[in-house]
Amino acid sequence: MKMEPIRKDIDNIDAYKPGKPIEEVKRELGIADVTKLASNENALGPSPRAIAAAKKALPSLNRYPEGSCYYLKRKLARLLGIKEVNLLFGNGSDELIDVILKTIKAPDAEIITADVTFVEYKISGSINGFKVISVPLKDFTFDLEAMAGRITPKTKAVFIANPNNPTGTYVTTRQVLEFLDRIPREVMVVFDEAYVEFAQKEDFPKILELLGHKNVAILRTFSKIYGLAGLRVGYMIADEEFVAAAERIRQPFNVNSVAQAAACAALDDKAFVRKSMTLVAREMKFMEKALTDLGVWFKKSAANFIFVRTGMDARSLFGKMLKKGVIIREMSQYNLDNYSRITIGTRRENIKLIRALRDIIKEDSR
Amino acid sequence: MKMEPIRKDIDNIDAYKPGKPIEEVKRELGIADVTKLASNENALGPSPRAIAAAKKALPSLNRYPEGSCYYLKRKLARLLGIKEVNLLFGNGSDELIDVILKTIKAPDAEIITADVTFVEYKISGSINGFKVISVPLKDFTFDLEAMAGRITPKTKAVFIANPNNPTGTYVTTRQVLEFLDRIPREVMVVFDEAYVEFAQKEDFPKILELLGHKNVAILRTFSKIYGLAGLRVGYMIADEEFVAAAERIRQPFNVNSVAQAAACAALDDKAFVRKSMTLVAREMKFMEKALTDLGVWFKKSAANFIFVRTGMDARSLFGKMLKKGVIIREMSQYNLDNYSRITIGTRRENIKLIRALRDIIKEDSR
Repeated sequence: MKMEPIRKDIDNIDAYKPGKPIEEVKRELGIADVTKLASNENALGPSPRAIAAAKKALPSLNRYPEGSCYYLKRKLARLLGIKEVNLLFGNGSDELIDVILKTIKAPDAEIITADVTFVEYKISGSINGFKVISVPLKDFTFDLEAMAGRITPKTKAVFIANPNNPTGTYVTTRQVLEFLDRIPREVMVVFDEAYVEFAQKEDFPKILELLGHKNVAILRTFSKIYGLAGLRVGYMIADEEFVAAAERIRQPFNVNSVAQAAACAALDDKAFVRKSMTLVAREMKFMEKALTDLGVWFKKSAANFIFVRTGMDARSLFGKMLKKGVIIREMSQYNLDNYSRITIGTRRENIKLIRALRDIIKEDSR
Repeated sequence: MKMEPIRKDIDNIDAYKPGKPIEEVKRELGIADVTKLASNENALGPSPRAIAAAKKALPSLNRYPEGSCYYLKRKLARLLGIKEVNLLFGNGSDELIDVILKTIKAPDAEIITADVTFVEYKISGSINGFKVISVPLKDFTFDLEAMAGRITPKTKAVFIANPNNPTGTYVTTRQVLEFLDRIPREVMVVFDEAYVEFAQKEDFPKILELLGHKNVAILRTFSKIYGLAGLRVGYMIADEEFVAAAERIRQPFNVNSVAQAAACAALDDKAFVRKSMTLVAREMKFMEKALTDLGVWFKKSAANFIFVRTGMDARSLFGKMLKKGVIIREMSQYNLDNYSRITIGTRRENIKLIRALRDIIKEDSR
């Protein structure tokens, strides 16, 4: 029996395992040239316009941020063709997952997600006292039919990462519409679209158009396409009533001032967005070919990363890649011992990764 | 009956009312010269060293922050003479209040605080499903004796703002030690020391020295003395076991990269800290004299703000001050209709405030 007032289920809450930071690898291994392809960050850096705006925000940092994200909200609403009352910003979409869960809090409530997806739905769910139902993927893709079958009167929300992280797959318009037809209006269906800008596919669902007709919430982020992961700014799009409730739940000054200024400017940086999309499209093809040549299995991806399987234990592969100065992500937390997730980098980074991988596979097959 | 999956008690959760931002006043009233003395921000701006470090962090903003706040933690631990395992950082101490509450979550749990104090204890408590006991202040000061009397087996934490916001009063070493002797070890006593650097008093309690002997947690912030409110970085000091549990609860990338770099540099900016302390000490004397001359009652303050009572309704005073370009904080949310809280500014700002106040009092007494 603990003497501390710590909650009894603390040991059941999974710790989040972040991608290993570049600085940490440099510190631990004493390697100067480290390439990080572990956290699906933008290989081109941050949006230059965002950086310029961030610089201008620095002298006023003694002031609290505008709690409402006034300018950012106005600009983004206009850009998306929605109302400001449909938007809520957070300290990354991580915070918004927590806010959504708190907003739908009820005794004995359940949420449904997949077994292999962004872990924060499960972690935040457990922290907030929800029972989390993890439905197995089908061919590495969200199995919406099976998920619909798990809805009960206790279900409060369904979390769908689309495209899915870490597998890179997506559910289609048709699948989503069929799914939503089976979901009661009391259940919030959350589409986490962190990688949506990379998913240029005809049958990728336009959830935004369902706003007001269905109980959907969309999560998006400035971390990926705008290259602002370090600043922490994500947003939720949902109907007015749900946003108004979530506004009461979020922290009063959740989005820092630099993030607000940078995100605002990033929305204008169309050249950077285009360049980022083009890079990922081109380098994805390069990686697919190079992995095929190496005989490494991968799943076709609609995001800025690729999910691969080698013959090796992924933890051992991770360690060996690290020594060659390349950080990737191993998937043992999902009990997928031979799988890794690799972020699409610049051509130089991708070549470095492929060379390292080739050398390791060669050594392993001896 | 709502069709939305929104929690049933949403209307019972108080919305946080922030100090009116300068930009908002400029927008709404079309006044160019606006003085904000509403949010206890640092009148000298942000620490210059912090700004320089923030600038350097901008080009890497495409990378996620170091989740562990590695460098900041190491530096602050050394400075405070504690271990790194005793420290946890948050997106402002606002987030840490939420993290503490989640860490001590239990069915039917209660927390105790004062009726007139920082509202986030109550708001976060309600959001996280705690029953919040608000014990009346005694002479505008936390009534620790009465609070100890409210402890039950359901009590999980006590929140004490010291100095208290908005009244500026503090509880003494003797009062705290007597209080802690009455508190069972299963109750976490949280001392929110956001304004500790301004409380240069002999009998101000040194909670840090109780670490390991008593179940105490200390909250501090970079928002006030270091002038970094816009960046959102606060920290908790507690025993190793509690910090380890809270580490599982906090968001994985809660403190943005700019904040980490700036806070690290701010710790070196001893000149700025000294200047900020000196300004507040000197200007507090100026304000006390000026208010006395105006016949305005105030409570002696140990922080960088002053709690005042005029004969006027504070909401009306707030509106009149606004028209003269000065933002202060009215206290109607506490049902204290004649009370206001005024941040200590620079001499120029304080003179502007006192002149505006004098004019309004004159008009009112006609």
